[in-house]
Amino acid sequence: MPLDNIVIILAGTKHPGNIGSAARAMANMGLGRLTLAAPRCEIDEEAHRMAKAGTDVLDAAQIFPSLTEAAAEMHMLVGTTGAIGGYRADTSTPRQLAPKILEQAEKQTVGIIFGPEDTGLVDEDLRLCQLLIRIPTSRHAVSINLAQAVMVISYELMLGSFTREPGRTLRLASLEQTEAMYIQLEEALLKAGFLHPQNARHMMFAIRRLLGRAGMESSDVGILRGIARQINWFSTAKK
Amino acid sequence: MPLDNIVIILAGTKHPGNIGSAARAMANMGLGRLTLAAPRCEIDEEAHRMAKAGTDVLDAAQIFPSLTEAAAEMHMLVGTTGAIGGYRADTSTPRQLAPKILEQAEKQTVGIIFGPEDTGLVDEDLRLCQLLIRIPTSRHAVSINLAQAVMVISYELMLGSFTREPGRTLRLASLEQTEAMYIQLEEALLKAGFLHPQNARHMMFAIRRLLGRAGMESSDVGILRGIARQINWFSTAKK
Repeated sequence: MPLDNIVIILAGTKHPGNIGSAARAMANMGLGRLTLAAPRCEIDEEAHRMAKAGTDVLDAAQIFPSLTEAAAEMHMLVGTTGAIGGYRADTSTPRQLAPKILEQAEKQTVGIIFGPEDTGLVDEDLRLCQLLIRIPTSRHAVSINLAQAVMVISYELMLGSFTREPGRTLRLASLEQTEAMYIQLEEALLKAGFLHPQNARHMMFAIRRLLGRAGMESSDVGILRGIARQINWFSTAKK
Repeated sequence: MPLDNIVIILAGTKHPGNIGSAARAMANMGLGRLTLAAPRCEIDEEAHRMAKAGTDVLDAAQIFPSLTEAAAEMHMLVGTTGAIGGYRADTSTPRQLAPKILEQAEKQTVGIIFGPEDTGLVDEDLRLCQLLIRIPTSRHAVSINLAQAVMVISYELMLGSFTREPGRTLRLASLEQTEAMYIQLEEALLKAGFLHPQNARHMMFAIRRLLGRAGMESSDVGILRGIARQINWFSTAKK
């Protein structure tokens, strides 16, 4: 049941074979929902040749022109990254995150995003994500094939689904709600002089990480928007 | 250190791309020793194209004309299978077996065998294996891509190597020693009438599973050969 609410989102994928292989890996591990965001290739013969047992998954794949559109209806977004440091400091392993993802997927849709083969997800994409996953690797060979990364994470999710104990699940706000809140908050903090154009991006990223980890319900978003409104009003009044 | 004593053996592989992808997955997970047993393809451009960070692993791959020769110097052999039932009843998951494999690999060489893409390992191959691994899958899509299977098992071994606590390790007898013992034992049991030509294969398989699980040191093999000799002598005398 939770596995049905997990969507694998491949963003900007270049090689059709990787899409097919990812579909097969998903099917192996009981995942069925594949989304392609701004793919840079066709779903061609090669994709179908690699899909094998994942043919149904491949055929049912949804395609969106951008990652933002692909992510709009998700309630939780998880980013995958091979790089370390900077905005990527706060990553967890697939095994650490699987229980959290499965718990959320009990009730709501969770998207797990995999970036393009050459660059991975860029900061702009990671901003959207509440949680970041990094698959542990040898220091000498950190770059994992896209479909292999899908396999490892799907594998952890399937194993996790076998052993899960249901608990209280947050009813997370939609991405649309939270993004609107972040915009309003950033504007207010800029106006208040807490953020400056040169550090706004960096600070907002830290705030996103913090709130992302916490998980926001609609009521939380409402409270944060209220705070942003207050700051905005106060800053305007002061000037 | 234990990872250095683990050899991934691809038996009868048909697609060069799978060999390259497997080499990359191994490198990602800190494994370096790749052996090809009776490959049914060349290590061509496609293999190199897929290897990426695993190029060194691919270039260092050893090639043997048969699985038996590839396995001769191993002290423990682990077979992988996607099928269930029959001789394959006694399988474990990668997570269950990783600690056992790593413990053995502390001192001795462990080979993990992956069969051809189309058939997997056949009974004849599985006979050689002390332990069998089956990667859990959805019931609806059990067939995992070869390189993906290598990834999942390598991933479990790497994670296991992070958390391992060293304990007492058996100094296992070589495959050559144990195979010679099994042949002698089978002959003796046939002569004694305990085995019959129509059930010998089946019974010997059960014996192999049992002793394989236990793990045999050279002294154990010596004891079993002594028993076989006794049975043989007794049966001959009785006639």
